Amino acid sequence: MAQSTAHADNITMSGGGVYSLATIGAKDVIDRAMPRVLSAIDSMRAARLQEHVHWTFSDMGCADGGTSLDLWRTVINHLRDNDARDIQIIYADQANNDFNALVKILHGLTEFDAYLPQFENVRVLESGASFYTSILPANSLDLGFSATAMHWLSTLPCRLSEHVHMVGAVGGERETFAVQAAKDWQEILLQRAREMRPGAKLVLVNFCIDEEGRHLGHTGGVNMFERFNANWQSLLDQGTIDADEYHAMTLPQYYNTVEEFSAPLLDPASEVYASGLRLSDIETAIVSCPFAEDFKKHGDAARFAKAYLPTIRTWNESTFAGALKPERSSEDRAELIEHYYGLYENQVAADPTGHGMDYVHAYMTIEKI
Amino acid sequence: MAQSTAHADNITMSGGGVYSLATIGAKDVIDRAMPRVLSAIDSMRAARLQEHVHWTFSDMGCADGGTSLDLWRTVINHLRDNDARDIQIIYADQANNDFNALVKILHGLTEFDAYLPQFENVRVLESGASFYTSILPANSLDLGFSATAMHWLSTLPCRLSEHVHMVGAVGGERETFAVQAAKDWQEILLQRAREMRPGAKLVLVNFCIDEEGRHLGHTGGVNMFERFNANWQSLLDQGTIDADEYHAMTLPQYYNTVEEFSAPLLDPASEVYASGLRLSDIETAIVSCPFAEDFKKHGDAARFAKAYLPTIRTWNESTFAGALKPERSSEDRAELIEHYYGLYENQVAADPTGHGMDYVHAYMTIEKI
Repeated sequence: MAQSTAHADNITMSGGGVYSLATIGAKDVIDRAMPRVLSAIDSMRAARLQEHVHWTFSDMGCADGGTSLDLWRTVINHLRDNDARDIQIIYADQANNDFNALVKILHGLTEFDAYLPQFENVRVLESGASFYTSILPANSLDLGFSATAMHWLSTLPCRLSEHVHMVGAVGGERETFAVQAAKDWQEILLQRAREMRPGAKLVLVNFCIDEEGRHLGHTGGVNMFERFNANWQSLLDQGTIDADEYHAMTLPQYYNTVEEFSAPLLDPASEVYASGLRLSDIETAIVSCPFAEDFKKHGDAARFAKAYLPTIRTWNESTFAGALKPERSSEDRAELIEHYYGLYENQVAADPTGHGMDYVHAYMTIEKI
Repeated sequence: MAQSTAHADNITMSGGGVYSLATIGAKDVIDRAMPRVLSAIDSMRAARLQEHVHWTFSDMGCADGGTSLDLWRTVINHLRDNDARDIQIIYADQANNDFNALVKILHGLTEFDAYLPQFENVRVLESGASFYTSILPANSLDLGFSATAMHWLSTLPCRLSEHVHMVGAVGGERETFAVQAAKDWQEILLQRAREMRPGAKLVLVNFCIDEEGRHLGHTGGVNMFERFNANWQSLLDQGTIDADEYHAMTLPQYYNTVEEFSAPLLDPASEVYASGLRLSDIETAIVSCPFAEDFKKHGDAARFAKAYLPTIRTWNESTFAGALKPERSSEDRAELIEHYYGLYENQVAADPTGHGMDYVHAYMTIEKI
């Protein structure tokens, strides 16, 4: 959720630090990757200590950088045990990201607990390059990290006729999405292979459909994407939006399965395999919705509903708003979008059972041989 | 003028691309450095071609990046003659710079003619690190460039009792500024020495006081800084501002002479010399005020005055505004600042003779042995 693509229109994350404040769950997802990142670094350490070159890490789809501050602080502390070499961390997101918020958060000019002022010889750099392109020069990256970002496709392959997200797509439309997603996943990996040094690692934490068919917002209770669609459909049924607007709302996202993530990394005939990338390890994991967890403690349904909706809006409001006809006034547009999310909030408040946006991710480590 | 310091308060450049549009003169200054930059690169080329590593350039105090687009385009075209290796260019300015404008300009999302979409294997990165700190890891920089930025001191050493700028300071106050400036110049150079590779170059284009005592806005006609001071003083005399506000307006800038720039680079006992930095070449040059040049053609004094003032306001308005007491309302503050610049505009319109902000720079090339 931290990055949209360079090409799919109308997708932006909320700026000004709002993203990290509304997405404590995204931080939980990243924190869970810490042992995996440290282990990837440890596996490179002996070889890298023989060289006189700085460490280069990347954080792809970083948004405002707030959710991964603790991850990088932990990495730096870990390295500083016996390695005083310079470290540079490159934060990348598409060119319309809020870089002013990112830079201020990284440099300690906000309420976030920045790590940069706490260490010597650590540099942070920012890049407006999408992960569908190279971010760094060839053969310069030691470890690339990305969390909750690579489900954004490079382009919308088709509009879905009866749903707003590929998890509800069927038949030829589902297949069209799968083909685009496979192409995009290959491109992401080939661009990384070029910029990675031999022995370098990728630790990627990507939304997935897991072995039991679970995915974001669909882990046994209410299916969040079915709610999105049903409520959007209800606006159509009531004549609040028209059929064009209904169909224009298709999220340019794809959630791969473990098999889909693994395929190009395991197939000796693939371009990705030929580029030297190998899958070291992949597992799926669920991180509970922090707002639903909170609700278990406080039991106030209205409070839960009010706290829960903003985390959803951070990543899909711009797409819903973008589906509305350009001739609508900005007041009309804003009112309609408030009404749309209000429906969901009222449903949660009226019957909170089973609501929540659990995160379902594939955590993987990839090596360049 | 493209960068203020991390420490001196209340100094920001105008954002959103306004800076480059209002500072065509700053681009002329940079364009004049092109042969010097190409020559610095050519002197490294033979040695660098033996290595299998990308080129790393920096643009320090870049503001929104618009004024140096043609410089870097020329550099890349020059290198691409016989060298296909990756190039990365790091744009650095203090953390409160407008990085959103910078990234959008670099990535071709504005009306500026970006070079990035025109080349393969060129990467741009941004940094919120001041040039008073390291921007890059040790031993990683090939060529560092900066124009019209390093006159901003790291801190204001003292308030001037009878002027707004060090060019009008005398006695102990002038000396206090000189001491701070020498310390700051040393720090800038030592930070660069650390990040430069052996054989790397710096091409720096810094405001100076030249051999004939000329400096920015003082090349024979009206002395711009005397106008700033006289008009600010007139607000005090009329009771529009009080004595505290008059004295709070001291620009944290220093214009070195050629001797001052050269001193640490020529003195074998200095830390800078010990770091391996050597002065290859230094010269001063005047670039004419483009608005005064335009006036010679069109002869319309009011038009000249109207076009001329914005280029001044880009770099000193925030400091004048910051000198006003915090208890003033924002309306009062805005009105007072409009009145202040209105005085100058009226003076130019009434008698344009001798007005203009000619640029007086020292152009220097420094090598790390």
